[in-house]
Amino acid sequence: MKNKYFDLVTLKFLLFQVHNVEDLLKKERFKEYDKTSIDIFIDSVKTFSDTALFPFIKEMDENPSYFKDGNIFIHPQFENILKNAGEMGLVGAMNDFDDGGLQLPSIIFNAAYFIMEAANNHVPGYIGLTAGSANLITSFGSQYLKDTYVSNMLDMTWGGTMCLTEPQAGSSLSDITSMAIPTEEDHFMIKGQKIFISSGDHQFSNNFVHLVLARIKGAPSGIKGVSLFVVPKLRPAENGEFVYNDAVVEGEFEKMGQKGYCTTHLVFGEKEDCRGWLVGEPNKGLSYMFQLMNEARIATGRMGTAIASAAYYSSLKYAKERPQGRKLNRSGKKNNEEEQTLIINHPDIKRLLFQQKAMVEGSLSLVLETANYLDKEKTSTTPEEKEKYNLLLELLTPIAKTYPAEQGIKSTSDAIQILGGYGFCFDFMPQQYYRDIRIIALYEGTTGIQSLDLLGRKITMKNGKAVALLASEMQQTIAQASQDEELKPFANILLENMGLVQKVNKWLIPFAIKGDYERYLADATVFMDFFGTIVMGWQWLKMAAIAKLTMKNGDGNQSPEFYKNKVQTMKFFFTYELIKTKGLAKTIMNDEELTINATDEMF
Amino acid sequence: MKNKYFDLVTLKFLLFQVHNVEDLLKKERFKEYDKTSIDIFIDSVKTFSDTALFPFIKEMDENPSYFKDGNIFIHPQFENILKNAGEMGLVGAMNDFDDGGLQLPSIIFNAAYFIMEAANNHVPGYIGLTAGSANLITSFGSQYLKDTYVSNMLDMTWGGTMCLTEPQAGSSLSDITSMAIPTEEDHFMIKGQKIFISSGDHQFSNNFVHLVLARIKGAPSGIKGVSLFVVPKLRPAENGEFVYNDAVVEGEFEKMGQKGYCTTHLVFGEKEDCRGWLVGEPNKGLSYMFQLMNEARIATGRMGTAIASAAYYSSLKYAKERPQGRKLNRSGKKNNEEEQTLIINHPDIKRLLFQQKAMVEGSLSLVLETANYLDKEKTSTTPEEKEKYNLLLELLTPIAKTYPAEQGIKSTSDAIQILGGYGFCFDFMPQQYYRDIRIIALYEGTTGIQSLDLLGRKITMKNGKAVALLASEMQQTIAQASQDEELKPFANILLENMGLVQKVNKWLIPFAIKGDYERYLADATVFMDFFGTIVMGWQWLKMAAIAKLTMKNGDGNQSPEFYKNKVQTMKFFFTYELIKTKGLAKTIMNDEELTINATDEMF
Repeated sequence: MKNKYFDLVTLKFLLFQVHNVEDLLKKERFKEYDKTSIDIFIDSVKTFSDTALFPFIKEMDENPSYFKDGNIFIHPQFENILKNAGEMGLVGAMNDFDDGGLQLPSIIFNAAYFIMEAANNHVPGYIGLTAGSANLITSFGSQYLKDTYVSNMLDMTWGGTMCLTEPQAGSSLSDITSMAIPTEEDHFMIKGQKIFISSGDHQFSNNFVHLVLARIKGAPSGIKGVSLFVVPKLRPAENGEFVYNDAVVEGEFEKMGQKGYCTTHLVFGEKEDCRGWLVGEPNKGLSYMFQLMNEARIATGRMGTAIASAAYYSSLKYAKERPQGRKLNRSGKKNNEEEQTLIINHPDIKRLLFQQKAMVEGSLSLVLETANYLDKEKTSTTPEEKEKYNLLLELLTPIAKTYPAEQGIKSTSDAIQILGGYGFCFDFMPQQYYRDIRIIALYEGTTGIQSLDLLGRKITMKNGKAVALLASEMQQTIAQASQDEELKPFANILLENMGLVQKVNKWLIPFAIKGDYERYLADATVFMDFFGTIVMGWQWLKMAAIAKLTMKNGDGNQSPEFYKNKVQTMKFFFTYELIKTKGLAKTIMNDEELTINATDEMF
Repeated sequence: MKNKYFDLVTLKFLLFQVHNVEDLLKKERFKEYDKTSIDIFIDSVKTFSDTALFPFIKEMDENPSYFKDGNIFIHPQFENILKNAGEMGLVGAMNDFDDGGLQLPSIIFNAAYFIMEAANNHVPGYIGLTAGSANLITSFGSQYLKDTYVSNMLDMTWGGTMCLTEPQAGSSLSDITSMAIPTEEDHFMIKGQKIFISSGDHQFSNNFVHLVLARIKGAPSGIKGVSLFVVPKLRPAENGEFVYNDAVVEGEFEKMGQKGYCTTHLVFGEKEDCRGWLVGEPNKGLSYMFQLMNEARIATGRMGTAIASAAYYSSLKYAKERPQGRKLNRSGKKNNEEEQTLIINHPDIKRLLFQQKAMVEGSLSLVLETANYLDKEKTSTTPEEKEKYNLLLELLTPIAKTYPAEQGIKSTSDAIQILGGYGFCFDFMPQQYYRDIRIIALYEGTTGIQSLDLLGRKITMKNGKAVALLASEMQQTIAQASQDEELKPFANILLENMGLVQKVNKWLIPFAIKGDYERYLADATVFMDFFGTIVMGWQWLKMAAIAKLTMKNGDGNQSPEFYKNKVQTMKFFFTYELIKTKGLAKTIMNDEELTINATDEMF
């Protein structure tokens, strides 16, 4: 298992068996693909990741991106990476053939990026953000904007960014103050500052296309007055050349992790010469941005999953090589005369491995499920079907972002623990993954924001229709699993948990109905933990049910051990993780209102 | 709250009200002290920490200790720090007056070190390890060793270390291979390597006194053949000078945190010229080392608590200064026309603060309780009393080490979360505390080792006598709290949890009785989480009961809000943390044997 950072067999099991990609490929949009061509695509991404990405992750940590003389410099290997990613079509992988894309399903796009991120999480953001920005222009921009910017972005000649956060407005986008002043021409004059802008500049792109949220002068306050602009680093001049656009890098944020992935501070219009072009209609910027944002949220969860996957395999390698202590036997104490055993033979090490495996594979399944809903929404033929998949997508997105973020912290910490003191040292990788993953719960809306979105918007959306649809999906899995004697008790546990969700919602929702939003949302993050754990239980039951079915039908191409392994990991998840939902439900349904009532002098 | 890193009022509440230090001061050993002199001592440590330690913590992270030309170099500020610590008597604070010490109680020593560690966790290890090593020599060494080494250690002219870990023997001390070959003189010739040796060398000590575990040639295998040696860096020559002793630094481990605190690789006897002096009797090294080790375990838990304290106050400062978003009101949604509110007014931020506060103050109380048992053991006048406090000390030590270690990871992570994206950046402190604290679960026996100690040795020790004694201590707290109407329901919850412990033990112990140790100990770490959380519930109930009593009696010198605050934090702990014990009990009492049965091919 030299340098293993993800499990290809599990990924393909998830794609083709659990999430049934072959069904999706029958749709008109994806009919150019079949299992073989998808396999070839996935395998080529793995080869690219093995050779161009994974070997550089440690170097990128040791040689962070940096700011010098008005420019950002990133690791030299990026020249090769970005060029190849462009050539392989990874930027426009989901775009229409007509727009120069590969027209791949989102689930395959996400599988490919998962591999790249597991290999080297410092890299794919440069590509993914460029892809997302190009998609935004394609979806909502004028023909002029598409013609001017998109093709150079798809081959990674130019980079794309999303510029939301401002120094005074982090989580709160309604407080954005960047200004756009109309001119007599087709552009606006932009003025403002944006911080935490990922991949905002570097030496390997000729130009950057910033997608900037700003207010048109005189626009209403709050999010209803926010518009979206294309603000290039260099703008097109009349002679066809590209000239200075007063969109400059002010600096780089120095971070505890993901150091190869630059995080910039951009200043627009300091010399009153920054032009921006409106995307779509005025004051609708946030709704456009949410297309990118929703994809970015899934992508963030995927990246968390990928980092945890790499940490898991790094700790697994150590556990299989390191002798330490003796195995306790089952009929007496350890015997010092014996040879030391490999640490993987200690139950507590197996527990730490199981924890990671359950988190990584469960999260990956959830991320792919969410992406699958996006594909199903896109290829729906009736409005009912479209609405169904849209609601499921909306409901699962904050969970697919948050579960891997929060549990990934624990999972990478478990990887460190397996290495003992070495886990804390720079010579080994787990400590880097542990630092890298800590950003995931902050990117694209913190855990607090995702939890407000889940409980405050998604649960109550359309009178709870999304939750009802999810319950029906879960029921299907439960029905399937109940056919199997071994799985039946676990199907029942999931059913009980669904009852618990109803109980909690019945207790909570009256606060929303009577307008007491502070009370309703006070424990939104605890609700996220509660609900997310149950959703993960569903994914595991689904994997176990498919695994058993495949074994029974004898139509899998893996050994029986592979499928049994999924069943055992499901049991581990139910026994060590799902068990906590009752306690969380009690916490949510407590009457004390402790946080609301606490004054700031209390702390 | 400029640069606050711990709460002096809470510390004194814990010392004088919850843990009743004034009672302890009545004992013969401590009769030179009273509340006023202790207050002066604590206050002087705070002043020292405010001025000499806290201002340098960020610099020490930015300028790690390093290895060059055979020597370790640490931050220049250490020259001043170590000199002052020696002069203030902090090294020998617990030692007898006759041995040049301050003869302070362990609880006060721990309170003082807690302050220093909260100010700058990179520092006190240099002092504490020297103190511990000096104590070991004082307790078990010959008069020659005492005369030769101790006084130079107490004033920090020389440093002391404990050398246990070897490259092939981390957690497993029975596999130590360092050798000691007897000579015709009073010394042995030492040969071997030790890794992860904290404060193993630096430019501000003239000499180092390493306390080294090694085997005398021909000794039995396993821990029964391990002896303890004093191995100085420079050894005394006949002319009274100190000369080269072939005990050299081979390198420095580069770590993700606690970078100012050097971690060295030592090589003894490479040139066959390394002399060591036996401490006490042959083959009893591990039992002597355990005196230092047990103190070091409490110290490690204390350090975790201290780091979490500093992170808490750093995030609290931000929460009180940073405006973001609007407060949800209780009769409708947020209103964008309002000014942004400080983030401390959002319930989820208060939850993150509460989590930290409950962890920090609860852990501090547990650490002080454990230290208090040490003092009570030391000053006991009857064998029964001595045994009682010894057993309580033994039982609580692994918990006092582990709870702050494991929960401290979560607590410092919560501090990062409060800062949003800034939390991930080097400009702010939480990310450093988050990196620093990750070593705590690895130092002095990992969480896995502590958990084996708790369940495998301490729970069953003397037929469960330690657990019975703890239960009786908890009963006293429950009885006291039950007198108060507000606390009674919480006293009942703790009582229920004590019943749950009995139930779990009744289920587990039969495995030990029939010799199935693998099964008995398979979920020792889950048991640690379960039992540790209940012990923490006891500490919180105790604090709340004392707080209410003080309010009722009107004999506290703080405002009623201070005491109410402790009651509210107890309620928070019971509602958000103690609630998880039922789930953990179920995990422990599961029949699946998932980890034992998992083969390594599963992962």
